[in-house]
Amino acid sequence: MSQILEQINLPKDLKKLNLKEKEELCKEIRELIIDVTAKNGGHVASNLGVVELTVALHSVFNTPKDKIIWDVGHQCYVHKILTGRKKEFETIRQFGGLSGFPKICESEYDSFNTGHSSTSISVATGMARARDILKEDYKVIAVIGDGSLTGGMALEALNDAGSSKTNVTVILNDNEMSISKNVGGIPLYLSKIRTKTGYTRSNRKIKEITNKIPVIGKPIVSFAHYTKQIIKRAVIHNMYFEDIGFTYLGPVDGHNIKKLEDILERSKKIKGPVLIHVVTKKGKGYKLAEENPDKFHGISAYNKETGETKKSNNYSKIFGNKLIELAQKDKKIVAVTAAMKDGTGLKEFAEKFPDRFFDVGIAEQHAVGLIAGMAKAGLKPVMPIYSSFLQRGYDQIIHDIALSNIPATICVDRAGVVGNDGETHQGIFDLSFLSSIPNVVIMAPKNFEELEKMLEFGVNLNKPVFIRYPRGGENYQFEKTEKIEYGIAETIVEGTDLSIIAIGNMVGRAKEIADLLPEKSIEIINTRFLKPLDEKTILKSIEKTKKAITIEDNVLKGGLGSAVIEAVNKSGIENIKVKTFGYDDIFVEHGTVKEIEDKYNLSKEKISQNLFTFREM
Amino acid sequence: MSQILEQINLPKDLKKLNLKEKEELCKEIRELIIDVTAKNGGHVASNLGVVELTVALHSVFNTPKDKIIWDVGHQCYVHKILTGRKKEFETIRQFGGLSGFPKICESEYDSFNTGHSSTSISVATGMARARDILKEDYKVIAVIGDGSLTGGMALEALNDAGSSKTNVTVILNDNEMSISKNVGGIPLYLSKIRTKTGYTRSNRKIKEITNKIPVIGKPIVSFAHYTKQIIKRAVIHNMYFEDIGFTYLGPVDGHNIKKLEDILERSKKIKGPVLIHVVTKKGKGYKLAEENPDKFHGISAYNKETGETKKSNNYSKIFGNKLIELAQKDKKIVAVTAAMKDGTGLKEFAEKFPDRFFDVGIAEQHAVGLIAGMAKAGLKPVMPIYSSFLQRGYDQIIHDIALSNIPATICVDRAGVVGNDGETHQGIFDLSFLSSIPNVVIMAPKNFEELEKMLEFGVNLNKPVFIRYPRGGENYQFEKTEKIEYGIAETIVEGTDLSIIAIGNMVGRAKEIADLLPEKSIEIINTRFLKPLDEKTILKSIEKTKKAITIEDNVLKGGLGSAVIEAVNKSGIENIKVKTFGYDDIFVEHGTVKEIEDKYNLSKEKISQNLFTFREM
Repeated sequence: MSQILEQINLPKDLKKLNLKEKEELCKEIRELIIDVTAKNGGHVASNLGVVELTVALHSVFNTPKDKIIWDVGHQCYVHKILTGRKKEFETIRQFGGLSGFPKICESEYDSFNTGHSSTSISVATGMARARDILKEDYKVIAVIGDGSLTGGMALEALNDAGSSKTNVTVILNDNEMSISKNVGGIPLYLSKIRTKTGYTRSNRKIKEITNKIPVIGKPIVSFAHYTKQIIKRAVIHNMYFEDIGFTYLGPVDGHNIKKLEDILERSKKIKGPVLIHVVTKKGKGYKLAEENPDKFHGISAYNKETGETKKSNNYSKIFGNKLIELAQKDKKIVAVTAAMKDGTGLKEFAEKFPDRFFDVGIAEQHAVGLIAGMAKAGLKPVMPIYSSFLQRGYDQIIHDIALSNIPATICVDRAGVVGNDGETHQGIFDLSFLSSIPNVVIMAPKNFEELEKMLEFGVNLNKPVFIRYPRGGENYQFEKTEKIEYGIAETIVEGTDLSIIAIGNMVGRAKEIADLLPEKSIEIINTRFLKPLDEKTILKSIEKTKKAITIEDNVLKGGLGSAVIEAVNKSGIENIKVKTFGYDDIFVEHGTVKEIEDKYNLSKEKISQNLFTFREM
Repeated sequence: MSQILEQINLPKDLKKLNLKEKEELCKEIRELIIDVTAKNGGHVASNLGVVELTVALHSVFNTPKDKIIWDVGHQCYVHKILTGRKKEFETIRQFGGLSGFPKICESEYDSFNTGHSSTSISVATGMARARDILKEDYKVIAVIGDGSLTGGMALEALNDAGSSKTNVTVILNDNEMSISKNVGGIPLYLSKIRTKTGYTRSNRKIKEITNKIPVIGKPIVSFAHYTKQIIKRAVIHNMYFEDIGFTYLGPVDGHNIKKLEDILERSKKIKGPVLIHVVTKKGKGYKLAEENPDKFHGISAYNKETGETKKSNNYSKIFGNKLIELAQKDKKIVAVTAAMKDGTGLKEFAEKFPDRFFDVGIAEQHAVGLIAGMAKAGLKPVMPIYSSFLQRGYDQIIHDIALSNIPATICVDRAGVVGNDGETHQGIFDLSFLSSIPNVVIMAPKNFEELEKMLEFGVNLNKPVFIRYPRGGENYQFEKTEKIEYGIAETIVEGTDLSIIAIGNMVGRAKEIADLLPEKSIEIINTRFLKPLDEKTILKSIEKTKKAITIEDNVLKGGLGSAVIEAVNKSGIENIKVKTFGYDDIFVEHGTVKEIEDKYNLSKEKISQNLFTFREM
């Protein structure tokens, strides 16, 4: 371990360092992050961007008494290294190791669990109000990126926090990805005046004076009218924040520890909500990441020198390629994403069809409403979205899509267990929360080829369609893939001892299990559709074998297993045994998919073992 | 029917009227709305507020080719009257009659279904983009209130629409409930300059000029600094809209048809997104509603002369009163609402505990995040929210509440069928979408007394708690109400022929059914908890009776019935018959609760009839 970092175990140790040592420490932290993420994968660019900011925060504030809420949370590595976890840092994102996100259960320095975007201002405002009511005395700081600020939850929270009069600090980590385009010379100059402690007082005085100036009448109006554009370019963002009640400080160079500490110290003296505008560079200090911040946002293990990662085919790519093929033939097809162009496989589509591609930013509610409008007006919109982020558009799915039977196609990527991102990113609820909604069609492909067929089938079905598939995904090989027919399951293998009813990638699991038990005659049914479920085929199979198991990479409650049991109950067929395999009413932690499936009895080994006990019943 | 209105069947008939006749028409429409809503109940104040606006819209635009999206949609009565439905208007909100909200299936003039807030800009932007891609030619207009504009979905959509460059018109119906506080003399004056057709052009010129002015240096900064406050008060809201890409027109008097028609005509000539700021008065033209816009927002049948409505006790009131009682004893209890203070029964709480009451506006995502922060920092937050609006906070329930096992209490009001508001407001999904979430506790009281007990139990349970109860609600009488114990059901009556397993208000229904069948020995179980479900008590009962029915006012998929069937399946108990009563995978239309329950086989008569067939099986 490096020289300075060796002396740092907890934030209090930072207070002993001088500026030069802190700068050296930042270097050492960067090296550690690059070394570990090159092995483990992780969020590289965002963490390299907040090294100085995190050091400054822990130098100025008194954590864990003061609370820092990391929005999204993927930028918490520096924070973890500085708060007693530098030794465990090499285990980050690994099964049983540190989480890649803040975790209350991991450290008292992690004030709140995050993972999804745009939550920090709400949580911080709640904590600040609790502190006021309970007459306690500490600071609450939300650290939020400019991208997260487009999320409706953050915008809602800004409005409330701004008018709250409570002491809450919002640090806008502007990493030059969006807002900074509007930042020119004047704000930088203004910040010198405005971040002086005197600013707030003089600002108040100006308000009092100007409130008394008679402002109606032609001269002032013309004055306002002509100067507006100048002022606007200069201070509009500041003004917006100030107008809704924040004291605005900044922008400040987010890689200058001295300036950061100064502005943070000053902010502590200001009453009411404060917004500090910090400008940082994603990937700072690591050339490859500075040049490719998107690639180094969330990355798998990579070569430190070249940035290379292992390439492999995956569901997202298959989706993207097939969508291009379909869009070439059908001009009504358009693609919409909520800030996940690369992750969902839409990069090439966006290049090929710039006029038919819409990235709305982190704005899932709007994205769902948007495709509803598009479909109603005659387009065939397709929106790939991560399962866990689709939760953000739940009301819109019900209210704007399903209720009016709107023919939009939503591709639920990262469904099932996603691996190292852990709890907040597991896509294990979508089958449940979607299947209780009337009018929707839910499909899941058994392999890449079936995804292609389902996509083509789905965009032309003229109904609200959901197609879910896992992150990456194993491309299981099957002898055949039948034509997709609405609501019809596919019988993969016929058998007489046991029915395995599986959905999506779990159909391959069923095949693995059958291969492990060659002495048994196992019938495998690929449901293809969870809704409408092909009860006829399933019941016929179960009536024959008298024993069935269901397999799904979803929580059991409300998923495939529930649907099969309900169908059996309704059918009146008697003396049937059904056992369900899936996640049992828990949040699932991080680890490789294999490790997680082993732990939760979903691996082929575990299912076939438990299956045996079951068959003995 | 009145004189002018008699001549108006479709919007095209408006074009024959002169201004005076249109003003007379508005009067007649107001009378009709008051007459009908006094009988049927409905959204009075918002409709009286948009009479002139609606007449102007249908005079200037060419519907149904041009599309109007009514945000929330409760202000669509005038629109319905003017678009071929004046004769049916007296049936509004009644079973089999017109819906109180826009309905695609009801008229080609209803461009999109609405009911929830803040969706219109997303849908309109989607339609506008579809029009562009399909090379069609029509206008798209979203009409949105200032209250709805605080919803994250609308804020997300504004950002996207503003930068879209597409022709989409947003009409901000500012009914002086929030934004107008900031509207002073200058904006009104400015509007005179700005709404002239010349404005857009001159505005562009100014932009070009000012872009060339060197803006760095002390003089300009001081200038900017000192004038900022004046400009800010004058044009901040306009500036915000313009800054994000809209051409801003207004504000304009929303009760002056001539001015409205002028500004709408002008807006048609502007390229790109336009925002028209219209100032209206809720309840306009009906003194009682002008004075009590909250009361006349959504109101049941009332006396036209006095405004009186039938008073009755209800779950919301019981909740509000009990919360006051608990809060008096426990200083950690606070209440949060998303713009539903009156509807959820918090009015008195807000008056008694102004420092412990937080109305965050229409901002459900933020509201859930806020209570998460509050609870984490030591408070006991309680948030009542309508079931169908809770859908807006779904991701936050999973990510910010359940995942960290945050002890917050969410009271799900308007659960089950709500009656005349219909499809978009029915609270029939919450049992399903909540029960698949780990860590949460779900309760439902059988009557008012049990709600009181559950609320006291819930706020002290130290877990994420949901308590759901219906709109209004019948206060069924029972001999006793046992003490609430965690995860324990209550056996109301013992019996041997049949088990009725019911939840919430449906326990009363179970009792009614037992009363209808005195010759049968029926065991009634009040589950109290859907999660954790008291499987032991339920299975013991079913094992005894061998036959069970479940009753819930929720969709069947993922609700109580599913949970009971799953428990039976898992138990291995054989030769059991379970029949489930609830809503069967459909959206439920408007009508009285009794009419709806009859239609969907949930009334006591229907259940007891179907029960009989079932018992014969």
